[in-house]
Amino acid sequence: MADKKMWGGRFAGTTAASMEAYSESVSFDWRLYAEDIRGSQAHARMLARRGFLTDDEAGRICEGLDAVRGEIEAGRFTWKTGLEDVHMNIESRLTEIIGPLGGKLHTARSRNDQVALDFRLHVAARIAVWQERLAELVRVYLDRAKEHGDTLLPGCTHFQPAQPVSLAHHLLAYCQMFRRDHERLADCLKRVRVMPLGAAALAGTTHPVDPVMVAEDLGMDVIFANSMDAVADRDFAIEAVFAGSLIMTHLSRMCEEVIIWANPNFGYVRLPDDYSTGSSIMPQKKNPDSCEIMRGKTGRVVGALTGLLVLVKGLPMTYNRDMQEDKEPFFDTDRTVTSSLEIMTGLLAKLEFVPEKMLATVERGFLNATELADYLAARGVPFREAHHITGAAVAYAEGRGVGLEALSLDEFRRFSDLIGDDVYAVLDYRAAVRRRTSPGGTGPDSVQAQINALSAWLGSVR
Amino acid sequence: MADKKMWGGRFAGTTAASMEAYSESVSFDWRLYAEDIRGSQAHARMLARRGFLTDDEAGRICEGLDAVRGEIEAGRFTWKTGLEDVHMNIESRLTEIIGPLGGKLHTARSRNDQVALDFRLHVAARIAVWQERLAELVRVYLDRAKEHGDTLLPGCTHFQPAQPVSLAHHLLAYCQMFRRDHERLADCLKRVRVMPLGAAALAGTTHPVDPVMVAEDLGMDVIFANSMDAVADRDFAIEAVFAGSLIMTHLSRMCEEVIIWANPNFGYVRLPDDYSTGSSIMPQKKNPDSCEIMRGKTGRVVGALTGLLVLVKGLPMTYNRDMQEDKEPFFDTDRTVTSSLEIMTGLLAKLEFVPEKMLATVERGFLNATELADYLAARGVPFREAHHITGAAVAYAEGRGVGLEALSLDEFRRFSDLIGDDVYAVLDYRAAVRRRTSPGGTGPDSVQAQINALSAWLGSVR
Amino acid sequence: MADKKMWGGRFAGTTAASMEAYSESVSFDWRLYAEDIRGSQAHARMLARRGFLTDDEAGRICEGLDAVRGEIEAGRFTWKTGLEDVHMNIESRLTEIIGPLGGKLHTARSRNDQVALDFRLHVAARIAVWQERLAELVRVYLDRAKEHGDTLLPGCTHFQPAQPVSLAHHLLAYCQMFRRDHERLADCLKRVRVMPLGAAALAGTTHPVDPVMVAEDLGMDVIFANSMDAVADRDFAIEAVFAGSLIMTHLSRMCEEVIIWANPNFGYVRLPDDYSTGSSIMPQKKNPDSCEIMRGKTGRVVGALTGLLVLVKGLPMTYNRDMQEDKEPFFDTDRTVTSSLEIMTGLLAKLEFVPEKMLATVERGFLNATELADYLAARGVPFREAHHITGAAVAYAEGRGVGLEALSLDEFRRFSDLIGDDVYAVLDYRAAVRRRTSPGGTGPDSVQAQINALSAWLGSVR
Amino acid sequence: MADKKMWGGRFAGTTAASMEAYSESVSFDWRLYAEDIRGSQAHARMLARRGFLTDDEAGRICEGLDAVRGEIEAGRFTWKTGLEDVHMNIESRLTEIIGPLGGKLHTARSRNDQVALDFRLHVAARIAVWQERLAELVRVYLDRAKEHGDTLLPGCTHFQPAQPVSLAHHLLAYCQMFRRDHERLADCLKRVRVMPLGAAALAGTTHPVDPVMVAEDLGMDVIFANSMDAVADRDFAIEAVFAGSLIMTHLSRMCEEVIIWANPNFGYVRLPDDYSTGSSIMPQKKNPDSCEIMRGKTGRVVGALTGLLVLVKGLPMTYNRDMQEDKEPFFDTDRTVTSSLEIMTGLLAKLEFVPEKMLATVERGFLNATELADYLAARGVPFREAHHITGAAVAYAEGRGVGLEALSLDEFRRFSDLIGDDVYAVLDYRAAVRRRTSPGGTGPDSVQAQINALSAWLGSVR
Repeated sequence: MADKKMWGGRFAGTTAASMEAYSESVSFDWRLYAEDIRGSQAHARMLARRGFLTDDEAGRICEGLDAVRGEIEAGRFTWKTGLEDVHMNIESRLTEIIGPLGGKLHTARSRNDQVALDFRLHVAARIAVWQERLAELVRVYLDRAKEHGDTLLPGCTHFQPAQPVSLAHHLLAYCQMFRRDHERLADCLKRVRVMPLGAAALAGTTHPVDPVMVAEDLGMDVIFANSMDAVADRDFAIEAVFAGSLIMTHLSRMCEEVIIWANPNFGYVRLPDDYSTGSSIMPQKKNPDSCEIMRGKTGRVVGALTGLLVLVKGLPMTYNRDMQEDKEPFFDTDRTVTSSLEIMTGLLAKLEFVPEKMLATVERGFLNATELADYLAARGVPFREAHHITGAAVAYAEGRGVGLEALSLDEFRRFSDLIGDDVYAVLDYRAAVRRRTSPGGTGPDSVQAQINALSAWLGSVR
Repeated sequence: MADKKMWGGRFAGTTAASMEAYSESVSFDWRLYAEDIRGSQAHARMLARRGFLTDDEAGRICEGLDAVRGEIEAGRFTWKTGLEDVHMNIESRLTEIIGPLGGKLHTARSRNDQVALDFRLHVAARIAVWQERLAELVRVYLDRAKEHGDTLLPGCTHFQPAQPVSLAHHLLAYCQMFRRDHERLADCLKRVRVMPLGAAALAGTTHPVDPVMVAEDLGMDVIFANSMDAVADRDFAIEAVFAGSLIMTHLSRMCEEVIIWANPNFGYVRLPDDYSTGSSIMPQKKNPDSCEIMRGKTGRVVGALTGLLVLVKGLPMTYNRDMQEDKEPFFDTDRTVTSSLEIMTGLLAKLEFVPEKMLATVERGFLNATELADYLAARGVPFREAHHITGAAVAYAEGRGVGLEALSLDEFRRFSDLIGDDVYAVLDYRAAVRRRTSPGGTGPDSVQAQINALSAWLGSVR
Repeated sequence: MADKKMWGGRFAGTTAASMEAYSESVSFDWRLYAEDIRGSQAHARMLARRGFLTDDEAGRICEGLDAVRGEIEAGRFTWKTGLEDVHMNIESRLTEIIGPLGGKLHTARSRNDQVALDFRLHVAARIAVWQERLAELVRVYLDRAKEHGDTLLPGCTHFQPAQPVSLAHHLLAYCQMFRRDHERLADCLKRVRVMPLGAAALAGTTHPVDPVMVAEDLGMDVIFANSMDAVADRDFAIEAVFAGSLIMTHLSRMCEEVIIWANPNFGYVRLPDDYSTGSSIMPQKKNPDSCEIMRGKTGRVVGALTGLLVLVKGLPMTYNRDMQEDKEPFFDTDRTVTSSLEIMTGLLAKLEFVPEKMLATVERGFLNATELADYLAARGVPFREAHHITGAAVAYAEGRGVGLEALSLDEFRRFSDLIGDDVYAVLDYRAAVRRRTSPGGTGPDSVQAQINALSAWLGSVR
Repeated sequence: MADKKMWGGRFAGTTAASMEAYSESVSFDWRLYAEDIRGSQAHARMLARRGFLTDDEAGRICEGLDAVRGEIEAGRFTWKTGLEDVHMNIESRLTEIIGPLGGKLHTARSRNDQVALDFRLHVAARIAVWQERLAELVRVYLDRAKEHGDTLLPGCTHFQPAQPVSLAHHLLAYCQMFRRDHERLADCLKRVRVMPLGAAALAGTTHPVDPVMVAEDLGMDVIFANSMDAVADRDFAIEAVFAGSLIMTHLSRMCEEVIIWANPNFGYVRLPDDYSTGSSIMPQKKNPDSCEIMRGKTGRVVGALTGLLVLVKGLPMTYNRDMQEDKEPFFDTDRTVTSSLEIMTGLLAKLEFVPEKMLATVERGFLNATELADYLAARGVPFREAHHITGAAVAYAEGRGVGLEALSLDEFRRFSDLIGDDVYAVLDYRAAVRRRTSPGGTGPDSVQAQINALSAWLGSVR
């Protein structure tokens, strides 16, 4: 290992090769290069304002950093594990380009606050991307909901058909989940967008730095309140991964439904070719791979969250090297959340719904049983008794192999003589949906109100 | 099993005894009794306003429910597992007290939205308690910080003494964690305080209910937007348990420090008798049991969070009985968080700090090395070189078995002739702390500013 | 708090009431009473053999402990939280009954090794129960498999019908999972059945104890090798909870299938009334609650496992009070695993399979497509090409709305002139199952061999 | 995307580019190339034996596969994500090299059983490596234990010094943990080394394959019992990751101790330069980075385990594409476990223990208090009373600022007149260790017996 460690002064020995491989982070934290450079440039400008650098020096540092970024983005930069991390790699190259002046950038700064800054900038940027993807997914849900206001779907509880709903209403339920995710991320951002530079190693600095100026330069909301907390805190990343976990559980619910709906016993959807795969041995199959993989990926994000909580448990103050393990779980979560939202958006846009299959289930599933119970209740039968009468009628109709609407009035009257001719209008499935006019219900007006509210919200966040 | 199931109409068989034990929830969800009664009373008042009940009927229902609550709180209520859950137990007793009128309460309501309401009311109430406990803990931290503005502590990174800080500054770092927890809970509450009644089983109701009136009656912020989401959503509980997990990790960090500080090699604290225990076989020991147990309890809250995420993964819409498993993890988390915050508050209030032990570590730990490096840098030595010079001086002093401040000027000059007599003032430990005047640093002004800001915040939330 | 703490000698203060509630364990570890008493009796007999007690003293201690057990099992024992744990409660009561002699039981023993012994005995006993329940479940699977050797089921990959299998073969797949669980528990037991008494607090004892005698008395396999490990180790409990987690994931897979199969779109099963519930509002529904709850309970066991791993992470040697938190996760897992296995056994025994529904899916799902591909391959068509030809034929038949077996020979020959009249025998679904004669395949001989092997195994473990 | 999908026959559309990136696995499962090739060669030999291939054909396939492996290992192989996974990449290249004959390899095999085989071979091979690393680590522990049989260490419970032990005894406690890990892996291997080829897609095959021959060829123990379980089972990987989790928790305990012992307040160890790092800003520091990172990495393995359990929860039979997510958690765990064991072995070999620092704690920590209590008990004082007397004496000595051994006989007699001159021999720390002669205790004979037993075990496993 030829590269000189910056902390090597007191050390007689050298780092074991296996230890160097074990402890380096540049193989993954190179992803922070843009934030590292932005942060260093803001730091340089602040140092100039405070008189630690001349304007010319700050200018040359910023240009040098631009050059480094150019090399990285052109693929011409050689990352060295001997230089441990993204910060030392960039600083080392900067010094090669602009000379010893590069070393001045370390004034009033430690890697402890530098890495906190880079990571916070990165998490904030990625959360913004998650929010965009969530909004785009909601937009596609809205589009599909608008197409299917009249499509009847057997609404399930306990995965048993319960009451008819419109497919639009079902799709809009997912919009609520993803909107909540978006809002949760906005709350999380308040705790991410805190500027930690100036905490130095842990105690603050003797130099008259201006962290507020740096925060403004970088578009961060506030500065840290306590330097020890500033370098010891990783809550912001854990909270982001938690928000990602909930996003994935929401996607997993949709995936579960698509997978089941694509099974020929349901046949509620036909999968678009470009989000499905076939079998190497069974040519008739069309597999919902995208949804299966996505459902499976829920595990890796929950695992990342668990891992982060294990990581911070019982750590004494302040920075501990354990915390280097904070980044990969976030990076992996970011890849998973971002790509999963994109895949679901693409899939949903092309998913072909099969209304006649949904309707068939509604019709043979006694999904108007609640209507009969309500009908009886409206005629003064105590609800529990109405419920029992209906149960008996269902059992009878099931025995005959028909729906309730196929029973004759005579048959109905065996169960209650309060039942009249008007029962048939009540038993109509579409009418059952239309009657559910309560706020948030599946009735058309409520569905339209939901669409309007979500459209307005989408307009406000994009 | 003598109790008649309310859904028994169509069922020829009976429930297996083992199945009844397996599926009942009243053994734990009885904790929701107050919320169940409050929710039912609000529902009754709304039904009266909308004409489903007369004012007299609503009054009798509300009084009957008051009577039930009275019985429960007096310990005279018999919970029956045959009645499955808290809701049916209360409704059944209500009907015994006020007659068949009790059954009318079920109008335009299902257990699906009822349980969602009760659970949301409960989680909201408990979060408010968590917030109070957090504020109380911060208050005690502030008190202790005010006592120890002049106490020097070896600030650690990598659990190695790094730079001196004031004990006040160290304690205030924890205040930031717990303040963040408080704010995170406030954000979470926005998603908890959503009124779901009126979603009925899943599709909304045909009755012209007024969920906004119920929400206002119960002090909830908004009503649900989509009835299917209203009965399928448990995000609010998972988010609360996540917030609890972070609280516990913060407490675990403090516990780790107290445990280590109570070890005689540190001796930084003396444990109050009433939060410690002894050994059955080793009389000289005084064990930090409270902190050990608390650190251990971090696991159970993280476990509860994991369990909830496993629970909801891959569930199709809408309500599935799996979701009955949502409550115990929250109840257990609530007990753990509430009692842990209380114990830490009590312990911290009585914890005896031992400043002379802290100072001893500061003095023999070269905690002024950074000062020497800064001294050299201020005299024009490039920072990296200043760092290497200092490292060499430390190695030399360590070899002599003394601190840097004990080196003679001649000795210093072997390392750099830029070092002058003024170095000794710089090497003074208290001066090192005082010089860290940057915002959020350990300097006295910064510490005072933190105390002021936290006091103001405390005033605003209590 | 009136009860005198046994370690109270050096303590001036008293325990805070909240701390007593926080740290007591008797509210849950009373479950170890039988093991605590068995362990103490074995210890007393060993002390007598080694001359620390007379035979008469040991006899009086053992009788006194029998009396205590009698009180506990008769419900006449008063557990006191002031006495902290099960061990002190029993010892205290013993001393009331037999006088100061009770105190001699503490010779050469500490609570550290005592609790390890009790917990190990308990975990071992419960694992044996889990194994019995697993064997019983496998027995019922075998019974049902024997009934359904000729029942065709659409075997799925990607939850898409792929190839016909016999229902027996499908059920036997679960037997393999639960047999593995049984064997994994047997392996775990080797690490549970280690006798730790004699480790004392952590360092062993100066007394010439005979731990091997105690181990034999208690039926444990070996004694501990290192006293510090003996009191610091909780791997055995974590491994048991892990084995429980896998059991629950296996049950969750079966639950998922029953839930889906009970949906009317499948209708492959009819749920027994005594393991199902109805809806309070939708009388036609029959809900697979037992399976839903069980699937949900998977989360709590995975959560318990996570919690235990969080608990032990980073604990220094040896016993730390954190470890008190080891018991509740195991107790909860035990309740969950034991009852879930019992419920699944009861449900499966009564579950009504509906072969005609399964067959209908087989017939309309092109589940003989692989047969056609194999037919072509057997006639010399390279496999990849055979696969493409079959895919085209499936697309054609799907367009016509019929199965492959309904195509005419002329139609077949549009895709390959190698297809002859003998193709129809090959396309027969039952023949397809019968032809899969490879070891472990779905053919009848293989299924019978599986049944024989499992029956023999059951005989060997019961 | 130019590469033709092998299942493309029925598909009109193409795969979306984002979907291809989302679903490909070759970017990580290329790690299975060696096992894929070994498995295919064994399959080819079996096909030849059974007459599906001529010996010449099988020979050409095996040579072609050798050529592919050569290209991969020489870095000349181009992995194509369009070919999805390692299996198709290798098969595709094989066919380029040897022509259409390559396609015959697919006879009686599906990707479902192929991937199961490859993964099982890989997990088995890696477990063997873990076992070697564990044995090597135990060997180094033994070496260090042999050096430190006479070094006194304050044995801790509750992280409070309790009784003196030898450092050897403390180190041997870790040997027990890692030996258990080794044995747990051996048990796990029984469930990994199961040969799944011949299960085909899920139902077995119509071809008269010989899976036993393949198993013997590959050195696997047994063949699968049920074809559906064979393609649906991932327990073996989850169990391996669980075993890895326990290994990491054991390492985390050692790490915690090294980190604390390296703190100057303890100073029990001096870190080897090649496993430590310095600070960029504080030259006096020597940080235990290797141990911190390792402690942190515990989280990622526990996270991997959690993720895998989430993954399989609720999956219906048989293979589901979710299961593609099984490999990365194992690969990451393998990297972590393998490297962590190596780093700890290297660190431990070079770690410098500082006996005089350990002794200083022993001497000022009343670690002979238990001896005094035992002394009194041996003179007939009931143990509880002996305990209280000792507590009072400790409090007195602490007040005087001396150890028990420094009290005069007069002083002792204030607490009990049973104390005589012989107490001083009893209070000697080394004598206290020597007296703990019970099996598994810290006495020298017991320690030697542990060393002998572990050496013998090491000899048996290497």
